[in-house]
Amino acid sequence: MSIHITLPDGAVREYPSGITPLEIAKSISEGLARNVVAAKINGEVCDATRPIQESSNLVLLTFNDTEGKKVFWHSTAHLLAEALESLYPKVKFGIGPAIDNGFYYDVDMGEKGVLSSHDFPAIEAKMLELAKQKNPYIRTEVSKQYAVEYFEKKGDQYKLELLENLQDGSISFYQQGNFIDLCKGSHLPTTEPIKAIKLLNIASAYWRGDESRNTMTRIYGISFPKDKELKEYLHLLEEAKKRDHRKLGAELELFMFSERVGAGLPIWLPKGTALRTRLEDFLKKEQQKRGYQLVITPHIGGKNLYITSGHYEKYGKDSFQPINTPREGETFLLKPMNCPHHCEIFAHKPRSYKDLPIRIAEFGTVYRYEQAGELHGLSRVRSFTQDDAHLFCTVEQVKGEFLNVLELTLLVFQKMGFKDYTAQISLRDPATPEKYIGSDENWAAAERAIIEAAAEKGLKTTTELGEAAFYGPKLDFMVKDALGRSWQLGTIQVDYNLPERFDLSYTGTDGQAHRPVMIHRAPFGSMERFISVLIEHTAGRFPLWLAPDQAIILPISEKFLDYSQQVAQFLDSKGIRATIDERAETTGRKIRDAEMRKIPIMIIVGEKEADTQTVSVRLKDKENGDKGAMNWGDFANLFQELLDNE
Amino acid sequence: MSIHITLPDGAVREYPSGITPLEIAKSISEGLARNVVAAKINGEVCDATRPIQESSNLVLLTFNDTEGKKVFWHSTAHLLAEALESLYPKVKFGIGPAIDNGFYYDVDMGEKGVLSSHDFPAIEAKMLELAKQKNPYIRTEVSKQYAVEYFEKKGDQYKLELLENLQDGSISFYQQGNFIDLCKGSHLPTTEPIKAIKLLNIASAYWRGDESRNTMTRIYGISFPKDKELKEYLHLLEEAKKRDHRKLGAELELFMFSERVGAGLPIWLPKGTALRTRLEDFLKKEQQKRGYQLVITPHIGGKNLYITSGHYEKYGKDSFQPINTPREGETFLLKPMNCPHHCEIFAHKPRSYKDLPIRIAEFGTVYRYEQAGELHGLSRVRSFTQDDAHLFCTVEQVKGEFLNVLELTLLVFQKMGFKDYTAQISLRDPATPEKYIGSDENWAAAERAIIEAAAEKGLKTTTELGEAAFYGPKLDFMVKDALGRSWQLGTIQVDYNLPERFDLSYTGTDGQAHRPVMIHRAPFGSMERFISVLIEHTAGRFPLWLAPDQAIILPISEKFLDYSQQVAQFLDSKGIRATIDERAETTGRKIRDAEMRKIPIMIIVGEKEADTQTVSVRLKDKENGDKGAMNWGDFANLFQELLDNE
Repeated sequence: MSIHITLPDGAVREYPSGITPLEIAKSISEGLARNVVAAKINGEVCDATRPIQESSNLVLLTFNDTEGKKVFWHSTAHLLAEALESLYPKVKFGIGPAIDNGFYYDVDMGEKGVLSSHDFPAIEAKMLELAKQKNPYIRTEVSKQYAVEYFEKKGDQYKLELLENLQDGSISFYQQGNFIDLCKGSHLPTTEPIKAIKLLNIASAYWRGDESRNTMTRIYGISFPKDKELKEYLHLLEEAKKRDHRKLGAELELFMFSERVGAGLPIWLPKGTALRTRLEDFLKKEQQKRGYQLVITPHIGGKNLYITSGHYEKYGKDSFQPINTPREGETFLLKPMNCPHHCEIFAHKPRSYKDLPIRIAEFGTVYRYEQAGELHGLSRVRSFTQDDAHLFCTVEQVKGEFLNVLELTLLVFQKMGFKDYTAQISLRDPATPEKYIGSDENWAAAERAIIEAAAEKGLKTTTELGEAAFYGPKLDFMVKDALGRSWQLGTIQVDYNLPERFDLSYTGTDGQAHRPVMIHRAPFGSMERFISVLIEHTAGRFPLWLAPDQAIILPISEKFLDYSQQVAQFLDSKGIRATIDERAETTGRKIRDAEMRKIPIMIIVGEKEADTQTVSVRLKDKENGDKGAMNWGDFANLFQELLDNE
Repeated sequence: MSIHITLPDGAVREYPSGITPLEIAKSISEGLARNVVAAKINGEVCDATRPIQESSNLVLLTFNDTEGKKVFWHSTAHLLAEALESLYPKVKFGIGPAIDNGFYYDVDMGEKGVLSSHDFPAIEAKMLELAKQKNPYIRTEVSKQYAVEYFEKKGDQYKLELLENLQDGSISFYQQGNFIDLCKGSHLPTTEPIKAIKLLNIASAYWRGDESRNTMTRIYGISFPKDKELKEYLHLLEEAKKRDHRKLGAELELFMFSERVGAGLPIWLPKGTALRTRLEDFLKKEQQKRGYQLVITPHIGGKNLYITSGHYEKYGKDSFQPINTPREGETFLLKPMNCPHHCEIFAHKPRSYKDLPIRIAEFGTVYRYEQAGELHGLSRVRSFTQDDAHLFCTVEQVKGEFLNVLELTLLVFQKMGFKDYTAQISLRDPATPEKYIGSDENWAAAERAIIEAAAEKGLKTTTELGEAAFYGPKLDFMVKDALGRSWQLGTIQVDYNLPERFDLSYTGTDGQAHRPVMIHRAPFGSMERFISVLIEHTAGRFPLWLAPDQAIILPISEKFLDYSQQVAQFLDSKGIRATIDERAETTGRKIRDAEMRKIPIMIIVGEKEADTQTVSVRLKDKENGDKGAMNWGDFANLFQELLDNE
């Protein structure tokens, strides 16, 4: 019997039933087959060696696919387990999943006790030795009884506990070499492609995240098909560590955290506040040009507000808990979003079609509970400020509003120096229209508007069917930073739900009440997260217009403090942010410190400069950065030129 | 036997023991005696007819004194009761105190049931008739038994209930005419000075504020020694009603409240946000010139923060209740003040004497619980934004910092058009130094610094001993608005307590750790309260630099919309905030609406203006406001001139 296999490019090929994805790859090219790590059959990831019985859609996964990487890394986790068992026979295994970058395995080292990174080279060597054996990953479906007996004999209580929650008939083992693991897959065909391995880190973790249970040793690692890829990755890690916004944020005195104030609640120090305010002012000005109206709303809202919006039912239990009043029995919540407040603003007076679109904007600080262990600098916090706006418009205006927002978002990326980005358009699943709120025509119109607007702006886009929220289609930007890492920044989301829940309406040309469309949008996303990305993208060397200190005046001795003051006053009059390093340090030390502080321009003043009313200018991070002496006015012109060229 | 009486000017006079304040007044001048309403003997207010047995300090109170007014109004409340009893013999009486403006009496009308304002003229007439009898207010000290028997016989259960809580030996009756009241005083010598009476309002109130008890009828009124004063007061009330910031705030679309968001939580609409932001930006700029550093802190803080600061113990029970986390058992509070966060910022790194003064500023929104019934527009709210700053300095720097803050505060008053203000300096009571935290020398130095700084700035000041907080002396501004009403705006408070509680220190010139002094200050006080005063002071006619819309362009027909757009673009390029009234209304209607919206400048454009590239300018609220036609550039110059003259 033969089956039809449909490939991603739409090509349909005929094969005998029972053929494996790997065999299909070989039928296309030997080179492709060598790179195949797994397959996706009708949308489900599985081993490339799994026979296909029926006509199917097939995607062959390589290491370049996100899902392919996960299979590769998960297979390496099994290899780690095999190596550990061979080195430390008493070791017992918890779970060993792939993660975003690599994998880990939680293990109980038994009598060996603690493992340390000193043990890594031996383990890595053993892993590579085993990989070279090119052992196949063999899947076997087993009965629950068989599986329980196997791990009882082996004496691994962790796997036995995992088995308790599994249904008989759904249990599989994977074996490579001498190592057998309880695992649902998927895996590489063999260990052969695993050519480069690095164990990265050791941590301890409670078994099943429960602090009353055993502490396991969690070993993190990563692997690649090529040594060169591993080297590049390790270099990236090194570079990322240097650029870590938590480290730079402290060094540059941008923000701090306080135990008493609370974890995940950033406190913006003066320089960080200046940076953030400058970003906000930039966006405010651009928004004003585009007809946005700024508002300010409270940071709490009555429980009824969130019952109306639906947030209470959906998020109430997992959020910061309600705030009660000492008398009168009122209940408030810290606001998790600004939209309900903005809906109340829309609703507070009658609106006509002539007033639309209404664009209500706010730099609104919202509060969302995250577990302490999940917090990370400014990028994962419990309070953050959205550069939020809600556009209320007619269905016909959606495209115009999208164009307006896209243009603004692209301007933001350009001003921040982000040059590499793509847009993902999330549409509804046309097969299940009942899952979505809003009429078919409105959905079709909005989806078409988004696609057309993105095309008109010449955006690189991907389109995902079924990824839309139940309340509307959306567009997300993925932005690559200087290290090639992708960040989701900037979202535009159509919403048919809140206008319904808040019973919003405007009077149309026909004199009847109509429901407006609502669009949520935030070009930065959140100030906190955006600035964390910006710090790591620029390594703290902000564009001149954003830099907290744009210039620093370095008098070569205290004799020139007076002259430095005169220069500082001139710079201030030109709106140039400059400070004086008044310390009694050597000029060399002052220059090094200014470099550490990543101040873009150094202005050195000594006898010659004071006598001739000039300044000696040195630009950081620029070729030919040493500009020599020039008079004040020329410096102001140079400064303006630098700003204009950003 | 003779006694010595010391008068407020320091003069000491000798009198026979048993003389009354009224007799002393007469001995000074008959005119004075006529105006005396009560006296203050050794700091305690009492009847002017009370004999003085010992040498004492004496202040003779007239209606012009706040305490004198209270006696006058409380005496009028008794007169109201007398009139009611004479008109409605079954009436029963609760309490009848003086309030800030007038008095009220809570009464149980018995079978008469409800009273209405239609009954006021008759009651007022009866009161005036009784007042003309010039009956003395006679105080009698009575035993509890006598008092109980009296009110049992009279059948007044309210007075009987009040008596339950009084100690025998401390009970007094006051009688004027046929009316006797249980009262501790003080009162006028006679009813004669009560020449002008107005009953203002009726409300219902639970007996003793307890909703399970009887509902009483509360009758509000006010009285004056002269008819002219009453007329002026009623005019002021009328004017204040027109200027009520709640009414104007809604009309001018500055702010709104939403039931779902919650009472007392202002939502700033676009025009209000623009106004508030302009005020904030003005202060930010002035603060930057004066070496302040802006920070941004979260709106919540861990419970430990407020245990450290002492706020939790002091205010915890009466505040918005703690916010718990769904896991991890953490507890946060909505921040009631910004100071603890700023202390954490000071403490986050080592500080040297060279760094001081450090001036940490924030427009920080704080949340304080008020009962719903106490809320009032923007002036009494549950969330408000302080223009807060905390100055950390050495004891020697206190005076310089005070001068700096006074200068800034006076600039604020000048820019807002407040011309009439006084400063109250609150010092400690030198007799009880143990009540205060901080060393004697520090207190003495800080108090001297404040007094000297205020004198150097030429401020009109009053000094109150014993009015300082336990943690430091302070200076408050009392500002009079256009209606002559006083508002407390702007506070400067020295604090020796928080630096102690947060264990703040800096390294002095001696290399040792020293405790900094902390100064709290807020020139506006809170943005909400300040803007409520500003709205009422200006009646919504904001100074040009603050006005949400500075100009409105009124095309006399739609033919001139294009030309209006050109003018609007020119104005925008000059930074002049202008809109176009594009409606198809008559010019007369457009002018009236622009006046309603209190827009300072109207620009009328028609055929003549379009042909000659001019604009016809009309200034609101200015003499010779009609400026005729002028070209665009001349208008821009006129505009700048108007700004400069503010």
